[in-house]
Amino acid sequence: MANLQDIGVSATINLLSALAFLVAFALLRLQPINDRVYFPKWYLKGIRGSPRRSGHVHDVVNLDFNMYIRFLNWMPAALKMPEPELVEHAGLDSAVFVRIYLLGLKIFVPITFLAFAVLVPVNWTGETLEHEKGLAYSDIDKLSLSNIPPASKRFWAHIVMFYVFSFWTYYILYKEYKIIASMRLRFLASQKRRPDQFSVLLRNVPLDPDESISEHIEHFFCVNHPDRYLTHQLVYNANHLAKLVEKKKGLQNWLVYYENKYERNPSQRPTTKTGFWGLWGSTVDAIDYYTTEVEKISTEEDVEREKVLSDPNSLIPAAFVSFKTRWAAAVCAQTQQSSNPTIWLTEWAPEPRDIYWENLAIPYVKLAIRKLIMAVALFFLTFCFMVPITFVQSLANIEGIEKVFPFLKPIIEKKVIKSVIQGFLPGIALKIFLILLPRILMTMSQIEGFTSLSALDRRSAEKYHMFILVNVFFGSVITGTALQQLQKFLNEPSTEFTKTVGDSIPMKATFFITYIMVDGWAGIAAEILRLVPLIIFHLKNTFLVKTDQDRDQAMDPGCLDFPVSEPRIQLYILLGFVYSVVTPILLPFIIVFFSFSYLVYRHQIINVYNQKYESGAAFWPHVHRRVIIGLILAQLLLMGLFSMREAEKSSLFLVALPILTIWVHKFCKGRFESAFVKFPLQDAMVKDTLEKATEPNLDLKAYLKDAYVHPVFKSSSIEQTLLIDDEENNTLVPTKRTSHRGSKLPSEDNSETDAYAGC
Amino acid sequence: MANLQDIGVSATINLLSALAFLVAFALLRLQPINDRVYFPKWYLKGIRGSPRRSGHVHDVVNLDFNMYIRFLNWMPAALKMPEPELVEHAGLDSAVFVRIYLLGLKIFVPITFLAFAVLVPVNWTGETLEHEKGLAYSDIDKLSLSNIPPASKRFWAHIVMFYVFSFWTYYILYKEYKIIASMRLRFLASQKRRPDQFSVLLRNVPLDPDESISEHIEHFFCVNHPDRYLTHQLVYNANHLAKLVEKKKGLQNWLVYYENKYERNPSQRPTTKTGFWGLWGSTVDAIDYYTTEVEKISTEEDVEREKVLSDPNSLIPAAFVSFKTRWAAAVCAQTQQSSNPTIWLTEWAPEPRDIYWENLAIPYVKLAIRKLIMAVALFFLTFCFMVPITFVQSLANIEGIEKVFPFLKPIIEKKVIKSVIQGFLPGIALKIFLILLPRILMTMSQIEGFTSLSALDRRSAEKYHMFILVNVFFGSVITGTALQQLQKFLNEPSTEFTKTVGDSIPMKATFFITYIMVDGWAGIAAEILRLVPLIIFHLKNTFLVKTDQDRDQAMDPGCLDFPVSEPRIQLYILLGFVYSVVTPILLPFIIVFFSFSYLVYRHQIINVYNQKYESGAAFWPHVHRRVIIGLILAQLLLMGLFSMREAEKSSLFLVALPILTIWVHKFCKGRFESAFVKFPLQDAMVKDTLEKATEPNLDLKAYLKDAYVHPVFKSSSIEQTLLIDDEENNTLVPTKRTSHRGSKLPSEDNSETDAYAGC
Repeated sequence: MANLQDIGVSATINLLSALAFLVAFALLRLQPINDRVYFPKWYLKGIRGSPRRSGHVHDVVNLDFNMYIRFLNWMPAALKMPEPELVEHAGLDSAVFVRIYLLGLKIFVPITFLAFAVLVPVNWTGETLEHEKGLAYSDIDKLSLSNIPPASKRFWAHIVMFYVFSFWTYYILYKEYKIIASMRLRFLASQKRRPDQFSVLLRNVPLDPDESISEHIEHFFCVNHPDRYLTHQLVYNANHLAKLVEKKKGLQNWLVYYENKYERNPSQRPTTKTGFWGLWGSTVDAIDYYTTEVEKISTEEDVEREKVLSDPNSLIPAAFVSFKTRWAAAVCAQTQQSSNPTIWLTEWAPEPRDIYWENLAIPYVKLAIRKLIMAVALFFLTFCFMVPITFVQSLANIEGIEKVFPFLKPIIEKKVIKSVIQGFLPGIALKIFLILLPRILMTMSQIEGFTSLSALDRRSAEKYHMFILVNVFFGSVITGTALQQLQKFLNEPSTEFTKTVGDSIPMKATFFITYIMVDGWAGIAAEILRLVPLIIFHLKNTFLVKTDQDRDQAMDPGCLDFPVSEPRIQLYILLGFVYSVVTPILLPFIIVFFSFSYLVYRHQIINVYNQKYESGAAFWPHVHRRVIIGLILAQLLLMGLFSMREAEKSSLFLVALPILTIWVHKFCKGRFESAFVKFPLQDAMVKDTLEKATEPNLDLKAYLKDAYVHPVFKSSSIEQTLLIDDEENNTLVPTKRTSHRGSKLPSEDNSETDAYAGC
Repeated sequence: MANLQDIGVSATINLLSALAFLVAFALLRLQPINDRVYFPKWYLKGIRGSPRRSGHVHDVVNLDFNMYIRFLNWMPAALKMPEPELVEHAGLDSAVFVRIYLLGLKIFVPITFLAFAVLVPVNWTGETLEHEKGLAYSDIDKLSLSNIPPASKRFWAHIVMFYVFSFWTYYILYKEYKIIASMRLRFLASQKRRPDQFSVLLRNVPLDPDESISEHIEHFFCVNHPDRYLTHQLVYNANHLAKLVEKKKGLQNWLVYYENKYERNPSQRPTTKTGFWGLWGSTVDAIDYYTTEVEKISTEEDVEREKVLSDPNSLIPAAFVSFKTRWAAAVCAQTQQSSNPTIWLTEWAPEPRDIYWENLAIPYVKLAIRKLIMAVALFFLTFCFMVPITFVQSLANIEGIEKVFPFLKPIIEKKVIKSVIQGFLPGIALKIFLILLPRILMTMSQIEGFTSLSALDRRSAEKYHMFILVNVFFGSVITGTALQQLQKFLNEPSTEFTKTVGDSIPMKATFFITYIMVDGWAGIAAEILRLVPLIIFHLKNTFLVKTDQDRDQAMDPGCLDFPVSEPRIQLYILLGFVYSVVTPILLPFIIVFFSFSYLVYRHQIINVYNQKYESGAAFWPHVHRRVIIGLILAQLLLMGLFSMREAEKSSLFLVALPILTIWVHKFCKGRFESAFVKFPLQDAMVKDTLEKATEPNLDLKAYLKDAYVHPVFKSSSIEQTLLIDDEENNTLVPTKRTSHRGSKLPSEDNSETDAYAGC
């Protein structure tokens, strides 16, 4: 076991690497050339403009050395923006996401103080380890529960404190749920007119032999929602068209690349090969080749577009139905339309950006089968993922490679390369799997048939949370593959199982401390550096960018990676609960993680991320539930731990805690969850009345006309309107934006940006 | 272990006792004097009238000996009524309830045939028990799985058959759910205008300092459901008044009793004592005493009635809100009204008879706490109910009685009495507990705060099912108190636990066969005899009845005891699943139970029971879920059983079954459950449109005026209207009824009754 000194060394190393990331970040972000990597949000908002291309050095490199001194300035700047403004600036999803870190702080800062004030002295004076001679122990163990003799009365301190911790957590969870529910309601109420307020997503429209889908929908709603039904928008199966558009974009990028190349070096026309990735095939003139390819695909696209729009078979039995008032839409979304609950399904329309178009047309039976298959697949993925990886590893050794590629033998046999391969190969399969895992989980969620991106994200987070719980937490505590754990769990009495796990928990404290530092501290510092987007931006900037518009498209602001980040936070919260009474020394590490992450993510959502959708913090019930799961796990494990220390009697006093926790969960759920899944009629009515009073002549039908058109059709029509707009009045967009911000000059806007960006 | 002969003897005894009940029933029901006990339904329907009081013998005793010969005629008669007519006659609840028995038959008749065709020969030729010498075995064991050698390939037959059985069950469950969902929808659609179609139950109305509750409700709904809100009916806290009314009824009964007594024996005025139950206190003239008492309580009742109606504090923050159309009521019941989900709660109004008035005013927090307490209480009741009973038993021995009541010593010490007490006392505490159990469970459900009788029944059934499962099924299989079972379960690996249980299952087959005969066969035969209502009716008839109206009130038709009967059926279904492959010889006994029960209950709902409410088969999702639970339990136990027989490999093939069962459950739930909890807008609109066309001038407000008045107020007002009616047109009620049945003469009606009653 590691002692305090080892931990100190490890902490220093990780602190230094985190610091290195931070310094690199501080240096890189001050360079104007990286501005679009570190402040894309402000560009997207139209507040920050491009520096003029004058060719001066200080457009590329920052020469104001004063700024380098204050290189940590971004930290207070990230905290400066008040929350309401943050919600307006970055959306409620982002603002609430950083509140999860705040939740961690709110729970664990008081717990840490209490634990250090009460439990650390109790443990330190336990005097068990000192008396048992011949036993190696460290200072950390002296601070932990291991230093208490079995069946000691001192355990009562731990039990009482754990009750206090649990009740404190209940209180914070309740309060936070309440705050976020009211934030969501306020957010929804304050929102301006949006298409999804008036619309429901209608699925599984039954086919009628006498009527087209459109007529059938119109008749149904005219009869069953008379005087309230307004219009509907059919959904086309444009998946193939979307693929063509995507392909065209790639070809256009290559065309631009070669054109730029030719521009810089006009003496030689660039060539390419026609085969896969330009690696083989006959050599041709690149610009001509790609020009014809783009033209070819453009015609193909036009044909496909025509086909989709005219062919009735490309209509999906789903539609977006819009109503005259928000009240009517709320009613339709919350009620059942037909006596057959598998047809005429209505639900709240996601906002247009949030729709996952591919899944809109899955019938009920298929959906049920897909869910069954994915549930089984998730089970195998979680418990048996090591099987194929071990198999790949057994293949990917030196002998295997020599067998398949005999010509590589002379190179591989070299000593240096051999040792690299031997050290590197076994791990790489696992590493690749872990990198691909979120993508795999997302695909599984997509197969399950969710219709909005936000629902997909939430579902993937759930899967990832399960994976982390089984493979990281229990995997580390029990040691052994998940499958072995499962066997252990099935073949041991459930009380015995919690006992074994509970018993090995104190010994794993140092491991988890190191884990927090590597995965938490250094990982977060790497997040702020944005190395991958930085490199990609500069590659694109060098080879593809011609105009400022190109440069804007080249930047990749990214977005909050909810399905990965949230389950990770939950792991730290679980660790905090488990070790709060066992090894309180772990708590400060978690607190550092939470506060550092809070800072970094607040900075990122202000300056970088551009959310793909806005769900209005619809994920909070999931966050709440997973914190509750963590708390219950901790309570069960502690019961096991205490009964192993011959404190059976006192362990009985903990039985009430899991029951209480489940009750608190149910209570909060009943009290607040509906704010996240339903929309109250009262609020809808208020908004309707207000709108009727302020805008009596609103033409809602025109407003909703193109709201729910597949993005493939939209982009082209938008491009067209933009072109027309540009001819007529080319300051339309900026005007709109500055008018919203009042009469400030652009330079003032920039300074405002800088106030939050901190440079 | 019992052999076939023992079972045969037991079967004979139980068949004879069942037969005795049936003969007694056949004889008693033919006597006109018992007519009101065995055919109350027809009296309540107004189809059967009282025989004239002519004093003839054949009004009391049936002298037509021909009828005695056909004493089993009621059986085909019970099957005669076609189902649609049954639904109209007895309500959907009853008609669907007897379908549960039919479901049992549908599942198990084909399974029995298959099991006897395939598994019995496979088991019989297993030749294991014959070879193991020194082992006592019976013919039943030779027919069971015990006769197969460990690790035999013959187990594959059992596994394949169990897959077949499971899939057959899935198919039947799916089909039955579909049929019953469509029956319910048809029933709801065919119903005439009823107040609950237009009303929602509104609870947790927030208090407003400036407005009364009534004004607040009116304003809220005028704003949020404009043009659709019609009226509302406030709820008074009339619990005290209801008690007074109840008390008055009791006193009136005594008054009538003494008046009758005096009439028969005018020489002596009856006396009574003023104390408790007339046992002690000063002796007074009984008629005078009860007359003044009734008068006293009448005035008290009037004062209380005035107080309730005028005092704003007796108003409960709940109301029945009615709308102009069914569509609007359906919308309001299915949507959330306010952004705070704990106020302005709306749900479908139960039909007026179905309301449990005491629970209408429980705030959210209190409700949550009550549920928590009841969950804990249910746990202790299920697992620790033996503790207090053992305690009572330890007190209730002869020494204990002698200590408390020393004066009883000489009586008790007599030998005969002593042995009776010693044999009788230990069992009596348990027996009393088991008789009280349904009442206890119902009280617990009442505390949980359900607002309708039907919901209370469903919830109590759930609790009783859990109790039976733990204490009857597992209690018999594992032997030992539930608490010991729980300890075993916690201290053994879960696989080990299923193995132990699975292993002891074959040995318990004979016990369960006997149980089915005693509890099932004889129990059902006792049900049809209606001994308790028979005795009570004759007591009342002798002492209290003066007029025909009194006699109608004296009869107690009773109703289906859903919270007790349904969980019992589930136990038999579970036994059927478990023993279908283990000891197929048990199946015929279950089939006899199902068919006999089907007959008996069909007879009872046609001729006897008068349902207190009509929920439209809202209990079916619960029935379905519990059958699924039984199936999953059977599947898990069989997995344990097979792995004990060293057929580990083949047991692995059963893993898919529980997962599949859960999936089938989810599939059926998603497909059909909404028919039981929601009301589709389309159907509401159809009914509204139809009504508007046929009755354009309907005054709905007048129709709904008194629909949701507390029965205490209603009964008095109804009495008053009846009095007025009687003066104006004293054939109003019969006219209405006969007009509904067309122009049949009462004698014809009687013959129609007899066709189904079979005499």
